[in-house]
Amino acid sequence: MMNLMELRSAYRSGTLKPRALIENITHLLRAEQAMQQDPAWICLGNAEQIEAQLLRLEQNTGQPQPLHGIPFAIKDNIDVEGWVTTAACPAFAHIATRTATAVQKLMDAGAILIGKTNLDQFATGLVGTRSPYGAVPNTFDPTYVSGGSSSGSASVVARGLVCFSLGTDTAGSGRVPAGFNNIVGMKPTPGIVSIEGVLPACQTLDCVSIFAGTAQEAQAVLAVMQSSAQEIASEPCYHPAYAVTSDFPQALRIGIPSAPEFFGNAQYEQSFAQAISNAQTMGAHIQAIDFSVLIQIADLLYNGPWVAERYVTIKNLLSTQPEAVDPTVRAVVQQAEHFTAADSFEALYQLKKLAVSVQTIWSQCDVLMVPTSPRHPSLQEVAENPVLRNSELGIYTNFVNLLGMSAIAMPSGLTASQMPFGVTFIAPGGADQALLALACNWQSGQALPPGAPTAQPFKTTELNIRLAVVGAHLQGMPLHQQLADRACRLVQRTTTSAFYQLYALADTIPPKPGLVRTTEPGTQIELEVYEMPSHHLGSFLQLIPSPLGLGSVELADGTWVKGFICEPWAIKRASNISHLGGWRAYISGMTQT
Amino acid sequence: MMNLMELRSAYRSGTLKPRALIENITHLLRAEQAMQQDPAWICLGNAEQIEAQLLRLEQNTGQPQPLHGIPFAIKDNIDVEGWVTTAACPAFAHIATRTATAVQKLMDAGAILIGKTNLDQFATGLVGTRSPYGAVPNTFDPTYVSGGSSSGSASVVARGLVCFSLGTDTAGSGRVPAGFNNIVGMKPTPGIVSIEGVLPACQTLDCVSIFAGTAQEAQAVLAVMQSSAQEIASEPCYHPAYAVTSDFPQALRIGIPSAPEFFGNAQYEQSFAQAISNAQTMGAHIQAIDFSVLIQIADLLYNGPWVAERYVTIKNLLSTQPEAVDPTVRAVVQQAEHFTAADSFEALYQLKKLAVSVQTIWSQCDVLMVPTSPRHPSLQEVAENPVLRNSELGIYTNFVNLLGMSAIAMPSGLTASQMPFGVTFIAPGGADQALLALACNWQSGQALPPGAPTAQPFKTTELNIRLAVVGAHLQGMPLHQQLADRACRLVQRTTTSAFYQLYALADTIPPKPGLVRTTEPGTQIELEVYEMPSHHLGSFLQLIPSPLGLGSVELADGTWVKGFICEPWAIKRASNISHLGGWRAYISGMTQT
Repeated sequence: MMNLMELRSAYRSGTLKPRALIENITHLLRAEQAMQQDPAWICLGNAEQIEAQLLRLEQNTGQPQPLHGIPFAIKDNIDVEGWVTTAACPAFAHIATRTATAVQKLMDAGAILIGKTNLDQFATGLVGTRSPYGAVPNTFDPTYVSGGSSSGSASVVARGLVCFSLGTDTAGSGRVPAGFNNIVGMKPTPGIVSIEGVLPACQTLDCVSIFAGTAQEAQAVLAVMQSSAQEIASEPCYHPAYAVTSDFPQALRIGIPSAPEFFGNAQYEQSFAQAISNAQTMGAHIQAIDFSVLIQIADLLYNGPWVAERYVTIKNLLSTQPEAVDPTVRAVVQQAEHFTAADSFEALYQLKKLAVSVQTIWSQCDVLMVPTSPRHPSLQEVAENPVLRNSELGIYTNFVNLLGMSAIAMPSGLTASQMPFGVTFIAPGGADQALLALACNWQSGQALPPGAPTAQPFKTTELNIRLAVVGAHLQGMPLHQQLADRACRLVQRTTTSAFYQLYALADTIPPKPGLVRTTEPGTQIELEVYEMPSHHLGSFLQLIPSPLGLGSVELADGTWVKGFICEPWAIKRASNISHLGGWRAYISGMTQT
Repeated sequence: MMNLMELRSAYRSGTLKPRALIENITHLLRAEQAMQQDPAWICLGNAEQIEAQLLRLEQNTGQPQPLHGIPFAIKDNIDVEGWVTTAACPAFAHIATRTATAVQKLMDAGAILIGKTNLDQFATGLVGTRSPYGAVPNTFDPTYVSGGSSSGSASVVARGLVCFSLGTDTAGSGRVPAGFNNIVGMKPTPGIVSIEGVLPACQTLDCVSIFAGTAQEAQAVLAVMQSSAQEIASEPCYHPAYAVTSDFPQALRIGIPSAPEFFGNAQYEQSFAQAISNAQTMGAHIQAIDFSVLIQIADLLYNGPWVAERYVTIKNLLSTQPEAVDPTVRAVVQQAEHFTAADSFEALYQLKKLAVSVQTIWSQCDVLMVPTSPRHPSLQEVAENPVLRNSELGIYTNFVNLLGMSAIAMPSGLTASQMPFGVTFIAPGGADQALLALACNWQSGQALPPGAPTAQPFKTTELNIRLAVVGAHLQGMPLHQQLADRACRLVQRTTTSAFYQLYALADTIPPKPGLVRTTEPGTQIELEVYEMPSHHLGSFLQLIPSPLGLGSVELADGTWVKGFICEPWAIKRASNISHLGGWRAYISGMTQT
């Protein structure tokens, strides 16, 4: 996987040049396409399109650009001047004469557009199979769906072909494929990212979404792409008012469905239980929530007159060349012909009435956590039952944009069958930054790296340092944020070898332990091993006070990693707490007294 | 006319009891109804309904109630438990089982509901003629329309039968009849007054509106009726976000249509020119505004799919008893059958796009001033051309609720034919208090008292003091607000008799003149005469500093009123400015140097 922060560091240190990376990527992709069509791409940038971007990048002599040289892809329902837009419908193909505002902001910040990706035609679907350019296979198992409609954008990020990508999200298209491919799918509050230059699906609900390996990268992309207050005011607004929330309360209450639906998928059920347990480890309080009103709203989108918005976009094509439209998409969109204006107002009344009762949910919890999808269908299952399988996928996504909410789909480990499972955190509109902070924290507790197992490893000359922490840096502990701030990734939960003792140091704030290696057999002490990009090590060391320092620690399996050590003078006044097995047990004992 | 503040004073001083006033009103109204049906009323409260309210009032021993004993009426599309709601359609009549939230708040504050008023059936119309209960005649000339749809509510206030009334306003129904009957019609920002218990016209646009003689009374009613933030959140919200504005900038910019449309009504054109000149006298800067985008939006409401909202409300009646619906109303509402869901979304897109360009208007001015209606049709004209005449009336009102704006219709004098002319001030959503403050100021500069010429004079034992002001209390001058705060009404602009001199006093802040009576013929000095309720006189006198005081002043016509006088010692150091004819000319000369 490519990581934006690692790319930045490599560029900054000069070990890597944008031109070298981008040319490597484009050469590789073109060579692969020549051998076998990759259905994730509808088109790759041609040599001139790439070169023009590189020249512009190299001519930039102004401020450092936040996305300087970062390769990205966009879903092919988003316009870029001079590039063909197809919306996965060859009959609809045309060369765009404008660049979508959101994409322009990314390019102005130095990002390099590599290509445009496949989608469920006209962004109508959650499966990733409804395209004449081919069904996009899942990156973990090609017999399963990739999820859609932003299938290609999720695939190319999960496989490490680009650093990040844009999708669109009306009913869940920016979340479902993130969940099925073990990456992050950020769907901002409707309206905060411009949809100018994006082909509408449901214009009143559409959002531009971000796929990336980590929440931190999604945050960096959103920071560039987000509209200013003035820009927001200059576009049509279809969304309820919201207040901006930068952080959830310290004592986080996570709402989960009181009766979650998995349509019989026991592995997903198990994975969700594990996710709940992970959330508890993070210190969150779990609150069961009655989801019936949200399910009603999800139904409203699926069975209600909003489909008429899709009809508006393609009605000319439907009347002149109906056969040019994918049969399933056509059947879905033609339902619009049965809805009257009165139906659409009645559905709106019902939505707004239901929206009022949703507010009681926010008095019970700060954020919702749902399975991103309730189950993961195979390509075969979708082929046999294209509408039913699709509709099942939307039960935890459909209601979100109707309510003007923000959401982020996060990796949440593998199922017993080694397929990815994802959860989505959902919050009221305006909570984007709070969601991203929560997602960063969530991800730092995930042992599984993001992306597909076959993801291209990203090579720079930069080292990752493996670092063992035993005290206040453990997940959920007060100094853990220092690791999160440094793009650290949890790689292992284990213990030291038997030759250690753990001491509670006196007079340290927050309380800290000292890990002391012994010559006689002592105790195996609980620890977490993180990977920290080496350029962060200096600033991290700065934060470590006497008597602690960084040295080497032996793990249970006999390997050695870097980790926290303690000077001897401090041990004299410290209490030996080794019998507890670790710092977490000690702290939890303190809290109880 | 009944005035809420005067009623409060009379009740407080004990010179009047609520029971006495209410019984007088109801006896009078019942007697009149027995002689001849007044088409303004659909039903009067029966003896039990009135008595129950009086008993509740008399049993109140808690806090003083802001509307204690204040008689009011409501439009008959608003529910009150136990009262019949007809919406001006006998086939629709039913006894309501709930009381509209807005009415409940008024009743809980001590207001007494006298009766329910006539309307254009199902609130569909701006004329006041579309009702089987009769066309409501204009209160100035019964051959002209009253305006609608809140025809009856405007009529009963203009004739002084109640102190205030409620209308509803979707396309202008709370403003047009205010303009045609010389009263105030306040249409708050959509959503700030509950529409629970109000029969929907267009549910996404409907507002409860207030009719009263003065803006100050409307303000008092709104204060009681307005929803709390929590209550607002507990009702469906169809409106864009807004910020609350309590005051317009001191240097007020009033936007007027650059090419106002009067459909050939020269008298209205003249009256509007006079209104502009009055606004300039108030110190406002007048800015011509291109209204084309607002007119486009007004057209959208009249010709677009919003009519489907009206259809939703009466579709059962239309299918079972179409002949029970007024033929014009039926023709209007049945247009809904031609609109599809796609049409309704397309119209919404167009509206939201136009709404963006409306924002440029608010960079050019703080508030709009428009003719409340462009012309005033006779009953005959409407009968001949019911749809065209109706649609003409809405060009300055239709766009307001589509844009979530606030507006207040204000009396603006009489035309050459002695018919009322009104202007409406329109501001963005949330500017209700700023509009009310502006409207109070506007009204204090109006010589014509509100209401119909035949309005019942309201008798309490309270005196109104006639007070002449010559300096800093003149309209537009720094201390004028002291009069506005005391419910003063401008009754005359004239001069003193010839036996006066005017001096500019030294060292007064703000600058003040001294009016000095002479024994030899001197100069006629410009002044304004106000009527001040006598109970305000004490607090007013408190504010008057040495060397000034209140005494008697002779007017040009030889009558005497109370007015400002000056002690002699201050004249020695003052400059005689009599040759300028008045304080206004002196101040304007100062400003120019």
